Amino acid sequence: MTSRADGRDLDQLREVRFTRNWLSQAEGSVLVEYGQTRVLVAASVTEGVPRWRKGSGLGWVTSEYAMLPRATNTRNDRESVKGRIGGRTHEISRLIGRSLRAVIDYKALGENTIVLDCDVLQADGGTRTASITGAYVALADAVAWLRGRDALAGEPLVDSVAAVSVGVVGGTPMLDLCYTEDSAADTDMNIVMSGAGTFIEVQGTAEGAPFDRGVLDELLDLGTAGCTELARLQRAALEASVA
Amino acid sequence: MTSRADGRDLDQLREVRFTRNWLSQAEGSVLVEYGQTRVLVAASVTEGVPRWRKGSGLGWVTSEYAMLPRATNTRNDRESVKGRIGGRTHEISRLIGRSLRAVIDYKALGENTIVLDCDVLQADGGTRTASITGAYVALADAVAWLRGRDALAGEPLVDSVAAVSVGVVGGTPMLDLCYTEDSAADTDMNIVMSGAGTFIEVQGTAEGAPFDRGVLDELLDLGTAGCTELARLQRAALEASVA
Amino acid sequence: MTSRADGRDLDQLREVRFTRNWLSQAEGSVLVEYGQTRVLVAASVTEGVPRWRKGSGLGWVTSEYAMLPRATNTRNDRESVKGRIGGRTHEISRLIGRSLRAVIDYKALGENTIVLDCDVLQADGGTRTASITGAYVALADAVAWLRGRDALAGEPLVDSVAAVSVGVVGGTPMLDLCYTEDSAADTDMNIVMSGAGTFIEVQGTAEGAPFDRGVLDELLDLGTAGCTELARLQRAALEASVA
Amino acid sequence: MTSRADGRDLDQLREVRFTRNWLSQAEGSVLVEYGQTRVLVAASVTEGVPRWRKGSGLGWVTSEYAMLPRATNTRNDRESVKGRIGGRTHEISRLIGRSLRAVIDYKALGENTIVLDCDVLQADGGTRTASITGAYVALADAVAWLRGRDALAGEPLVDSVAAVSVGVVGGTPMLDLCYTEDSAADTDMNIVMSGAGTFIEVQGTAEGAPFDRGVLDELLDLGTAGCTELARLQRAALEASVA
Amino acid sequence: MTSRADGRDLDQLREVRFTRNWLSQAEGSVLVEYGQTRVLVAASVTEGVPRWRKGSGLGWVTSEYAMLPRATNTRNDRESVKGRIGGRTHEISRLIGRSLRAVIDYKALGENTIVLDCDVLQADGGTRTASITGAYVALADAVAWLRGRDALAGEPLVDSVAAVSVGVVGGTPMLDLCYTEDSAADTDMNIVMSGAGTFIEVQGTAEGAPFDRGVLDELLDLGTAGCTELARLQRAALEASVA
Amino acid sequence: MTSRADGRDLDQLREVRFTRNWLSQAEGSVLVEYGQTRVLVAASVTEGVPRWRKGSGLGWVTSEYAMLPRATNTRNDRESVKGRIGGRTHEISRLIGRSLRAVIDYKALGENTIVLDCDVLQADGGTRTASITGAYVALADAVAWLRGRDALAGEPLVDSVAAVSVGVVGGTPMLDLCYTEDSAADTDMNIVMSGAGTFIEVQGTAEGAPFDRGVLDELLDLGTAGCTELARLQRAALEASVA
Repeated sequence: MTSRADGRDLDQLREVRFTRNWLSQAEGSVLVEYGQTRVLVAASVTEGVPRWRKGSGLGWVTSEYAMLPRATNTRNDRESVKGRIGGRTHEISRLIGRSLRAVIDYKALGENTIVLDCDVLQADGGTRTASITGAYVALADAVAWLRGRDALAGEPLVDSVAAVSVGVVGGTPMLDLCYTEDSAADTDMNIVMSGAGTFIEVQGTAEGAPFDRGVLDELLDLGTAGCTELARLQRAALEASVA
Repeated sequence: MTSRADGRDLDQLREVRFTRNWLSQAEGSVLVEYGQTRVLVAASVTEGVPRWRKGSGLGWVTSEYAMLPRATNTRNDRESVKGRIGGRTHEISRLIGRSLRAVIDYKALGENTIVLDCDVLQADGGTRTASITGAYVALADAVAWLRGRDALAGEPLVDSVAAVSVGVVGGTPMLDLCYTEDSAADTDMNIVMSGAGTFIEVQGTAEGAPFDRGVLDELLDLGTAGCTELARLQRAALEASVA
Repeated sequence: MTSRADGRDLDQLREVRFTRNWLSQAEGSVLVEYGQTRVLVAASVTEGVPRWRKGSGLGWVTSEYAMLPRATNTRNDRESVKGRIGGRTHEISRLIGRSLRAVIDYKALGENTIVLDCDVLQADGGTRTASITGAYVALADAVAWLRGRDALAGEPLVDSVAAVSVGVVGGTPMLDLCYTEDSAADTDMNIVMSGAGTFIEVQGTAEGAPFDRGVLDELLDLGTAGCTELARLQRAALEASVA
Repeated sequence: MTSRADGRDLDQLREVRFTRNWLSQAEGSVLVEYGQTRVLVAASVTEGVPRWRKGSGLGWVTSEYAMLPRATNTRNDRESVKGRIGGRTHEISRLIGRSLRAVIDYKALGENTIVLDCDVLQADGGTRTASITGAYVALADAVAWLRGRDALAGEPLVDSVAAVSVGVVGGTPMLDLCYTEDSAADTDMNIVMSGAGTFIEVQGTAEGAPFDRGVLDELLDLGTAGCTELARLQRAALEASVA
Repeated sequence: MTSRADGRDLDQLREVRFTRNWLSQAEGSVLVEYGQTRVLVAASVTEGVPRWRKGSGLGWVTSEYAMLPRATNTRNDRESVKGRIGGRTHEISRLIGRSLRAVIDYKALGENTIVLDCDVLQADGGTRTASITGAYVALADAVAWLRGRDALAGEPLVDSVAAVSVGVVGGTPMLDLCYTEDSAADTDMNIVMSGAGTFIEVQGTAEGAPFDRGVLDELLDLGTAGCTELARLQRAALEASVA
Repeated sequence: MTSRADGRDLDQLREVRFTRNWLSQAEGSVLVEYGQTRVLVAASVTEGVPRWRKGSGLGWVTSEYAMLPRATNTRNDRESVKGRIGGRTHEISRLIGRSLRAVIDYKALGENTIVLDCDVLQADGGTRTASITGAYVALADAVAWLRGRDALAGEPLVDSVAAVSVGVVGGTPMLDLCYTEDSAADTDMNIVMSGAGTFIEVQGTAEGAPFDRGVLDELLDLGTAGCTELARLQRAALEASVA
């Protein structure tokens, strides 16, 4: 099996690190790293739900994604300064929220809202997948915080969720693309899976030439293996005691 | 094979209609209908390209998607009145643009820009897939308009592109969901394919429970067949002479 | 009497067509055409009224006007993308709402709101007057829908309303200007009248040289005759049965 | 002839005052008063014209209208704070600009731009007509400023322009409505005329019942007389020497 | 002691004028002038307080500052047109509100809100300090208006407040800088003081070289003397009877 | 001398830490901490200057400040989502930029621009002063980066700059307030000083009762001592070698 610029195998994740409780005031928080990609996720719990959901007995989980202006190689203008949120930001915020909601039992959560803020401090490819994987960890801590206050009506987390990118670079399918690989990819796919190994979201895009079913199958295999490994790392991080 | 509310087979498209040249002033235009879903697509050609592309000798294709306020069952506020474009609109505009660009040879297009405006006049599910399928037809007419003026450096269309939704409703995979089916779907997938039968975009989302690889494969099969049929209908529409 | 580029007499309307129920989900809708000008009007009924009117027992009617980006000969940027509504759009929306409200008995309407969305699909002059004339037809259908549900406290429509443009082109007053005539006009006037032949709105503007009282009188005569004919066509359209 | 709340005759203007050079830094400025209505108009001259007009040899004149938050009886939120300009503001700004441009010879003005800022300091009805009448005075002073610098290619002012409101209150047509009259009017009309007595803009609106041709004629007569008197007052103000 | 361009002594204020009740509809208003700088301040009283303060029994005072586009030597675009309020405007609005709130007894004011709109009609340096000094006068009149209606629970004004700028120009500290002095200043300081001679706000900025403690002390002395004189002028203005 | 909640002396700083090169892609970066307050500062260098400064031979330095939504004890909405930047953000961004520019020799910097992004990851009082102190360190690294590329025309840093808050809490003046102290302060002052011990900015505000000259003097003494210590820590951090 051919190796890559950074020496990784084609089916190998970058080094993944979770630093829980990076923030002292949030109900859950984690600094998640996929190699050089660093995302700070904060889970904020508030009692009550948005107006359209009041009185339903059901909770709500949502997410916002953003990037610091110098997370990238050259500086980008702030969306607050531009006065509008770009399409890419909107798209990723929606994807993260949808992915986390797929493992939530709203009834067990009760009328509580959890907002997951995913702020990319440094970007080196895979910021949306790192955000999802980290958001699950922060969410689990926020749920534990609610449990500690007897504010739950059951177990709101029906499974874990993790995400990874896969892609075809120079004709070769590979796992967890860094920025330079991502820029050169013909096909780019983000895969979000439950801890049980089922699909929550599959988004594949032909950046160059369209791809055939065989390539699609290879990418799904790589992504499935990657998510399985990430789920294991999440469990280990959540089992560790934190300061 | 079980049939559906409107009597269709599970692998059957709704009636698809293309009314070319619906607008008299646009370089290409089509009113595309997937059953009750009606999208007016206008292709606008302008000489020149965005600033970041000037002098490259390469063309550009982009798209904007929007919905009239009463395209849906209850009225939605206008995004122009709200002063901001929603995440869903951004996401779909980006998807359409990306899908069409996948079949463009920028060098052959030369320094020309084609904007594809997809305005949903009536919505009954599948507005983004109808937009893509219709946009290809309008794009082909706009390219023909450029060819008629000797403004091309070759054949800019390397293939056709069509799109369809598939989903799992009540445990059953089916093709081309109307609104009531879409609302009830556990899994929803949009598939964009080239005329050659390769994938340009695959976006599958678990609205309810996550789905396994077997379901994913069934949905890909259904979508592939649907896109093949749509490509045939596009060819027929483009071969017909218009007023 | 001199005839025009398209062969019309100076006091002749373009061909006017009303296609009622163009939309299947709106309480009232019409595709109105003044020659090549095509406006899709949707009347949306909602129970209740804006906050400042609650508990008054009175209804409300309002309107929003917009143009698709390629309704015109060259493409215009979307107002949703620009993030703000232009002065012209505001002005026309206000004019349409005011014109329709002039024939409404709010007490008979009861605490219901009707929004008239006028979206210009294709523009060839007279888009605001076609919008008003069409909006009356859609409004009448929406009122009939309310009547069918016993949701009215009387007859809310005290009269019909229609509108037409008149102008002086090359020194000659004429009725219902198309785009090329409008662009060349020295004086441009929009006239909104009730079915009873009284004025609801008169807006005359000297685009070139100011005009004298004699010209003003001639334009008012032309406009009065045009609105009388439009009122007749509205009645005929509303008496016809629709699919 | 019946008199009014403030003792005026039906065909009588309120006291009109022009305080020229109210600002020390603007090329032209006037505090114009129609009774309690006070508008500060500043004419700002800049060399050059907007991009779309460059190289044409023609000048440009435009206007912006706004109201201080406490110009009215109760405070209104600032449009800068709301982040958007309302329809009424847009509409009036456009009307003022159009009215002044009707008396401009762009060629004589040369490639200079004059912006007329009309800021309502206190509002008691007729703010748009006072703005137009005052703007002409400020414009004349700005043109004189340009003439003093030999920056003109001829006489840019082909005539003067003045405006006044007329309306039907309690069944009686009257001139120059103050706020309480305006609020009670069934019909409200703004008339903009040249010094030569021809019409530049006529905008009549039925606030209550539609009006017939006879009423329209009476209002036009009243407005014509009012504008004639205003033109006389403008001339007197411009002939006076100022500090 | 060296004198200045306009002949003033270094520790001398420009001519300060207060024209109370400049507006007929506001509960308090003043046209305040510091030489050529003219600010129109309107105090608007409304019953009730913002939501976050309801039921507290406490009142609220806030302020908004803005400049007319041609208050300055060259025209500035309107913030309403730009669609956003600039940092400088925000900063000054906040400063004025904070300064006035420092002399308010909220309990005595009761659940009433007073908004102080400070609109700069002409700017020649010191617009923020003139705004604060004038705002106190308008506020005092608005409080008197409330007292006249028995709407107070005590005396809401615990002291007066006045403000002045000081700066170092060409190495020399001086009081109340006009625009040309302000532009040339190395150090610029705004001082807000109570009538009792204590500090409410001190804002000193090194525009050129940083300044030492000795200069800071000199500026504080000059500003203290200036504010004492302004407090005397405020008392005189408020004791005078007005039309 | 009385001690505080966290055991500090009245004239003692919290623990101050600088982690240089926290970002791998920025030309300069530092994670600066004042106790629990954590600000990530990135210095971005770009060749060239804003348009209004082109061809002058002079450089430019500017700053943007922002806070992550969950930097605080309860979550705040994002300014990008609200579509506008608040007054506090504007005010602090301007203060930071002004403070850093006070120690820059623009000629030596040449036509280069350095943007200092200060993003508060966690807030516990003093975020603006920590931002300034950290921004100097990131700026120094960015200047070193430019020097390493021979892109400077001299030494652009004429001095260092550091900032600290002081305040009166419960009648006692103290240095470097944490959030709970800041909330309880009667007087709050931010002091920005050069390494040479001169003042760049002094901003004192009476949150409660106005303060007298004696208190002002005490606060200036405390702040001067704090800035001297911070300048020493900056030097130490910049002299240390980094990974």
